[in-house]
Amino acid sequence: MSELVAGAFPDVTAAAARRLMAAAVESFADNGYHATTTRDISTAAGMSPAALYVHFPSKAAVLSAISLSGHERALAIVEAAAAGPGTPADRMRVLVAEMASWHATHHRIARIVQYEITALPKADYTTVADLRRRTERVVRALIEEGVTTGVFACDVRSAARATLSLCVDIARWYTAASTPGPAELGKRYATLVLAMLGAGSR
Amino acid sequence: MSELVAGAFPDVTAAAARRLMAAAVESFADNGYHATTTRDISTAAGMSPAALYVHFPSKAAVLSAISLSGHERALAIVEAAAAGPGTPADRMRVLVAEMASWHATHHRIARIVQYEITALPKADYTTVADLRRRTERVVRALIEEGVTTGVFACDVRSAARATLSLCVDIARWYTAASTPGPAELGKRYATLVLAMLGAGSR
Repeated sequence: MSELVAGAFPDVTAAAARRLMAAAVESFADNGYHATTTRDISTAAGMSPAALYVHFPSKAAVLSAISLSGHERALAIVEAAAAGPGTPADRMRVLVAEMASWHATHHRIARIVQYEITALPKADYTTVADLRRRTERVVRALIEEGVTTGVFACDVRSAARATLSLCVDIARWYTAASTPGPAELGKRYATLVLAMLGAGSR
Repeated sequence: MSELVAGAFPDVTAAAARRLMAAAVESFADNGYHATTTRDISTAAGMSPAALYVHFPSKAAVLSAISLSGHERALAIVEAAAAGPGTPADRMRVLVAEMASWHATHHRIARIVQYEITALPKADYTTVADLRRRTERVVRALIEEGVTTGVFACDVRSAARATLSLCVDIARWYTAASTPGPAELGKRYATLVLAMLGAGSR
């Protein structure tokens, strides 16, 4: 298990829980969520099966912890960028660069976060759906501000959806061997999105 | 099982095979590929477990048939659009409109096609990877042509990736309840992509 994955849950305070979450990401990515057992996860984390239950009541609880942490991180990224300095175009450039590079760096986590959403327990699914709506609202409000102030020219709703879509889909195709690296990919995607929003045309 | 899904494999000649593929799409979407059995698929298709083996030697073979059909369809859509009449911008508008609307209309199939790729048998994975490369090459060549002729202004490689990414990611978030409908979504996405490629700025 890579340090990169284990370091991806800075909001989870117990080191053992972070290790289990990182091991679960690897197991889910390799074998699928449904085919993974709690024993697979604890073994991959170098822990006893019983140790897992100290932190998580079930496999679904591990998935929920990964998914909630990932969705909260995505929301934090867009909120920080949208509240940053500069014009809507400046802030959107930061937003896309950070979202794209997070999804490239943490593509294995992001895949679980994005594609295993239907396996979540109902209450956690509701929380995740709410985090997604809030994330989309932040992006939409920033584009709206840009359109209102004449910085952008686009259909706000579709453009917000497309902007997030571009960043999220990186998790599907990006691998450790992909080029360019996360930071450079983020920059290029930011340039593409600004053009898409009509920022380049004025 | 919906007629829409069963009608989505026009290249598969045996009606029973199409029914089994459509039933598999529903089962994989509801329970995940790994948790689905060949019995689940045949039952959902209203057929005996033995009837499945007349058409497919295994569950993996059903997945392969769905994945190959979907990837061939995607390649056919981009090839037809790229070979169509008009400027690179005209052809790109058709390409995105058709790819986006196919992924919206067939979002359940597209989800299997896009996200269950690691479960494919090795030989079929190689074929699918080749179909993906060819699809991306067609899109890249069309953008390249647009840049060369001064119709587009963008980084060709990132823009090709982003264009396909936008269309493919529709399968992740689109549901039967989503608005706008597939055709209108395709139109809006085509407009966004043309702006992203720098077509609107001249």
